Amino acid sequence: MVVGCLVEHDDKVLLCKRNIEPSHGLWTLPAGYLEVGESAADGATRETLEEALAEVEVISPFAQLDIPRIGQSYIIFRAKLKKPQFSPGLESSECALFGLDEIPFDSLAFSSIIVTLKLYIEDIKAGNIKFHYCIINKRAGASPSDPNGFSVDSRLDCQTR
Amino acid sequence: MVVGCLVEHDDKVLLCKRNIEPSHGLWTLPAGYLEVGESAADGATRETLEEALAEVEVISPFAQLDIPRIGQSYIIFRAKLKKPQFSPGLESSECALFGLDEIPFDSLAFSSIIVTLKLYIEDIKAGNIKFHYCIINKRAGASPSDPNGFSVDSRLDCQTR
Repeated sequence: MVVGCLVEHDDKVLLCKRNIEPSHGLWTLPAGYLEVGESAADGATRETLEEALAEVEVISPFAQLDIPRIGQSYIIFRAKLKKPQFSPGLESSECALFGLDEIPFDSLAFSSIIVTLKLYIEDIKAGNIKFHYCIINKRAGASPSDPNGFSVDSRLDCQTR
Repeated sequence: MVVGCLVEHDDKVLLCKRNIEPSHGLWTLPAGYLEVGESAADGATRETLEEALAEVEVISPFAQLDIPRIGQSYIIFRAKLKKPQFSPGLESSECALFGLDEIPFDSLAFSSIIVTLKLYIEDIKAGNIKFHYCIINKRAGASPSDPNGFSVDSRLDCQTR
């Protein structure tokens, strides 16, 4: 399980430029592997502290993205900064807030991050932030960051009656 | 990761009486361990077929319940029967539909099932089915089915703006 935060601040989101492989030099949401004995929300908060030196408070669950081909499941939470401070941690070379029309979709690190940010922009434009579940089916041999290297299936949004 | 279905039919939900340990003889939602290479939604559908011999279609994600003390995370989907047929699989001694005022809260198998069904009843009464995230903190030494053996923390509901 990979856990991460979509940190919202002043209508922008926080991205980190990766200083490690895979996808060195590409942008990601702060996210990483859940540790044993840790809840998903606590793991997402910890990863955000490690990668962006940012203290955040989780607001709500935003998405679960399963990638069965590589046995990963991403759990992404919306979060907010406890104070407006962040700077690159050891695994990042840069951290920055991006307006939704500024997101570098041609240099995002992972398919899961591409999908998460597209869902988020869709929700913001609709004025209705939902919870999303989907399956990312990766094409065999596609790189983790290839925007054409996957399809999105079984998409289910949290619905209200 | 444990995946399962909250199967809705005629304003009732499908429960299975466990024919295996732990919690033999107590009632549960059809649920079990995710297998390698399987998405959560596919795993939940498979478990429902195995435990209740019921073919279901997943409708939407309903809850994620982390139990960090035992390293488990439950992912529960709402689902509907493809046809109104079910019967006990190998791991069940009985399967039945229960109205929301008939749920045997004094004989449910696991804390995760108690919490899921309480959240569901709350949503149905409010006329608004949401997605829920929470952490179940189990008391050391409590049995899996002890209704007083845990607390629910960090509850977050999927919210709409």
